[in-house]
Amino acid sequence: MTDAPESSDFRPEARAPRGFADRRARELAAERKILNAVSAVYERYGFELLDTGAFEYADALGKFLPDADRPNEGVFALQDDDDQWMALRYDLTAPLARFAAQNWETLPKPFRRYAFGPVWRNEKPGPGRFRQFTQCDADTVGSARPEADAEIIAMASEGLEAVGLAPGQAVIKVSNRKLLDGLLVGVGVTDPVQKLIALRAMDKLDRLGMEGVTELLGAGRLDESGDFTKGAQLKSGAIDAILKLLGSPAEDRGRTLAALAAITAGSAAFDEGMTELSQIDSALTAMGVGSDRARFDPSIVRGLEYYTGVVFEADLQIATLDDKGRPVRFGSVGGGGRYDDLVARFTGEQVPATGFSFGVSRLAAALEAAGAAAGPERVRGPVVVIAFSQDDMPHYFAVAAQLRAAGIAAEVYLGSSGMKAQMKYADRRMSPAAIMLGGDEIAAGTVTIKDLDLGRELAEAVKGNSAWKSERPGQITVPRGELVASVRAILGR
Amino acid sequence: MTDAPESSDFRPEARAPRGFADRRARELAAERKILNAVSAVYERYGFELLDTGAFEYADALGKFLPDADRPNEGVFALQDDDDQWMALRYDLTAPLARFAAQNWETLPKPFRRYAFGPVWRNEKPGPGRFRQFTQCDADTVGSARPEADAEIIAMASEGLEAVGLAPGQAVIKVSNRKLLDGLLVGVGVTDPVQKLIALRAMDKLDRLGMEGVTELLGAGRLDESGDFTKGAQLKSGAIDAILKLLGSPAEDRGRTLAALAAITAGSAAFDEGMTELSQIDSALTAMGVGSDRARFDPSIVRGLEYYTGVVFEADLQIATLDDKGRPVRFGSVGGGGRYDDLVARFTGEQVPATGFSFGVSRLAAALEAAGAAAGPERVRGPVVVIAFSQDDMPHYFAVAAQLRAAGIAAEVYLGSSGMKAQMKYADRRMSPAAIMLGGDEIAAGTVTIKDLDLGRELAEAVKGNSAWKSERPGQITVPRGELVASVRAILGR
Repeated sequence: MTDAPESSDFRPEARAPRGFADRRARELAAERKILNAVSAVYERYGFELLDTGAFEYADALGKFLPDADRPNEGVFALQDDDDQWMALRYDLTAPLARFAAQNWETLPKPFRRYAFGPVWRNEKPGPGRFRQFTQCDADTVGSARPEADAEIIAMASEGLEAVGLAPGQAVIKVSNRKLLDGLLVGVGVTDPVQKLIALRAMDKLDRLGMEGVTELLGAGRLDESGDFTKGAQLKSGAIDAILKLLGSPAEDRGRTLAALAAITAGSAAFDEGMTELSQIDSALTAMGVGSDRARFDPSIVRGLEYYTGVVFEADLQIATLDDKGRPVRFGSVGGGGRYDDLVARFTGEQVPATGFSFGVSRLAAALEAAGAAAGPERVRGPVVVIAFSQDDMPHYFAVAAQLRAAGIAAEVYLGSSGMKAQMKYADRRMSPAAIMLGGDEIAAGTVTIKDLDLGRELAEAVKGNSAWKSERPGQITVPRGELVASVRAILGR
Repeated sequence: MTDAPESSDFRPEARAPRGFADRRARELAAERKILNAVSAVYERYGFELLDTGAFEYADALGKFLPDADRPNEGVFALQDDDDQWMALRYDLTAPLARFAAQNWETLPKPFRRYAFGPVWRNEKPGPGRFRQFTQCDADTVGSARPEADAEIIAMASEGLEAVGLAPGQAVIKVSNRKLLDGLLVGVGVTDPVQKLIALRAMDKLDRLGMEGVTELLGAGRLDESGDFTKGAQLKSGAIDAILKLLGSPAEDRGRTLAALAAITAGSAAFDEGMTELSQIDSALTAMGVGSDRARFDPSIVRGLEYYTGVVFEADLQIATLDDKGRPVRFGSVGGGGRYDDLVARFTGEQVPATGFSFGVSRLAAALEAAGAAAGPERVRGPVVVIAFSQDDMPHYFAVAAQLRAAGIAAEVYLGSSGMKAQMKYADRRMSPAAIMLGGDEIAAGTVTIKDLDLGRELAEAVKGNSAWKSERPGQITVPRGELVASVRAILGR
């Protein structure tokens, strides 16, 4: 393709690049609705909108690989005219960290910002797996208080309600990395590799259950295929403590805290984690966020090398079907937590930060699965004014303008086809009505309105019976002055 | 920078890449307002939203240079894993052409779509000159009718009104490339180079006036610096006809058409152009778009190698100041026209198309210059609840939640600073009010509300007089039940 000549008879193939989707009105309406609803929540919490450019310098993104010729592992990177490597942002947090470091002196602190927009990942595309997708984030930079985490959790929960999910359909699961870390320190696990194996084991609770995790924390696990995975080699006392941690989640935050308090971890980090969770519980309760909306769940692990304290996950409780048609829980539609090191990458100064990110496309899919009022079920087309003759065009345009002035979407058919094709066009656009202005109507100062929804219904009802066609169901002729009211009546049916 | 090691003590510099801007709440609110207003207009005209990915294959973008190692002239291009060159879209029309060609069989025709979003140009950045900016487009693909152009013109005009410009402040100037082409053919100019020189001369009418253009159409022009520009070498009869064309614009479309009709062009193309303009005039009139909103101006040229017929330009009549503080007309905030060859690049089949593009950032700047209700004059911050003690946090959060539930943006201060710094924070956020809940208020079930706007006004009024500080102006204490009403009163002041 690189060598294809751009001569006059060269015809490029019309196709979008791999992993990039063309999105039509219905999908975009659903996304816009989510973004508007979530933005309104964020703004009510005092977060201000920020938009950074699509590119960051590759070194600022932190995905810079010094050994590679091109630092494009996982990102879309290119070299600028001045030889500096730039890359498209792969999330909205890295640009925030750069922005905060760049403007720290002049920002009001703590700095609360929200952002939404496309992010890009240079990964292998697949079904439902795109290389560009939309995120919607809120972060507080410059507050170490657990209440800042609580606020983010409350916002995430309120955001899920604002887009149409009932409290029972979605829950924010909250944990604190310090509990796990503290527990492992307390039972004497300090080797980073052993720690990582233990954390990975805990992350598999959903899939393997307590028994599988117990094996992986100990000697190891033989799976069904006969493969043996070596375990973390923890002693039974350590395993017991971790199992208690994993077994702590209850419906009620207070009960989970009580169960956790019964664990003797013997480490300052664990106690610190507990204090933070208590403060989060207290702030959430004061904000009216009950345990039905935000729960503690110490099995939540999330990005191991990224978060430094509290972590959370927006979990959809609704059932959906997997690839093979089996019912499964929808699962995560977003997550976040505390990351205290991102700004320090630039300045050397540690700045506490916490934030949350919604995967907007995934949330839209979830809403669709939930049957919640995600997007419109279908996007209504405009009222179509049928064009019979060139001479009468001014009449058609006047009628369309009359409808638009009343706030009703309307258009004059501007193709070159006849009546039948025009009706088919109106049908494909999901138009609620077609307007006909023949010579008779124009002379009489009337319009004929065809109710296309009714027509579709009747067509469905009398399939095979052609009699209705001659009776012109749902078709009325009214004075032009009654056009708007008549179309409104059809739209309101 | 490429060779910088990513070691633990490597600190990337925190800066955005050249030509990419970080945009804050106020600017984004102005942009969002424009996009919402213009989208609503487009939808009323029956246009449906489409979003394509940021990337297109470079050959599809048509900026593919076969001789260069990298086809990145003017665009941001990179090579995908499968060695195909991709580039970020530089406008919204090229992706539409690709999409239309790809889906032509299944689209309702004519296909009306609108789109908005960032586009990228790999050009030398400068003051006010960015490499990423926002466009908002509407196009009709598949209609050769001049009425389709008229509709786009009407939408552009209505869009300008919807964002807050009065009819006298903005006008759509309309021309038809066929008039110029037809005239040149009629006077015997067929040499493409001569034609191009003539067109370029006409495009300079604004700057050089009739006299300068006359010289450039003839032998040539000696400018003030003594440089001589060779002219198009047209004969005096040809020059006269072109001057008549350029002199035709009147306030009234009908009068312009009459002046044009008096030109004897003697070419079919000219007559075709006239017929199209007449039909556009008729459709615009039927839609209620008067000459105050859309005028004919045959001096409008626009992108020479792109448009094939009608061209239009949204021109702001308002005065603004140039770099040197001199008053100038703001000029163009968008443009468009008929382009019948873009889809043919892919399919070989000519598909008639017409469209318009707003430069959203430029429009926002214009609105600001016009003093029109562009964005908010300033973005209001949230009500800030002052944090005095950790123990009372639940009270602060309860009060903030109470305000939010009433739709009022509110936050609890979550930094670690004292009262004075918190008030300064609230001031910098442009908060309308600060809420104080000390031990006394909590015991009494009251809140103290400080009206920060009033405080700012008073501070301005009594500058140098410190007496007011002790009197606590604009500060009231009310029962918690009256919190929302009291804050609303301040917001409504």
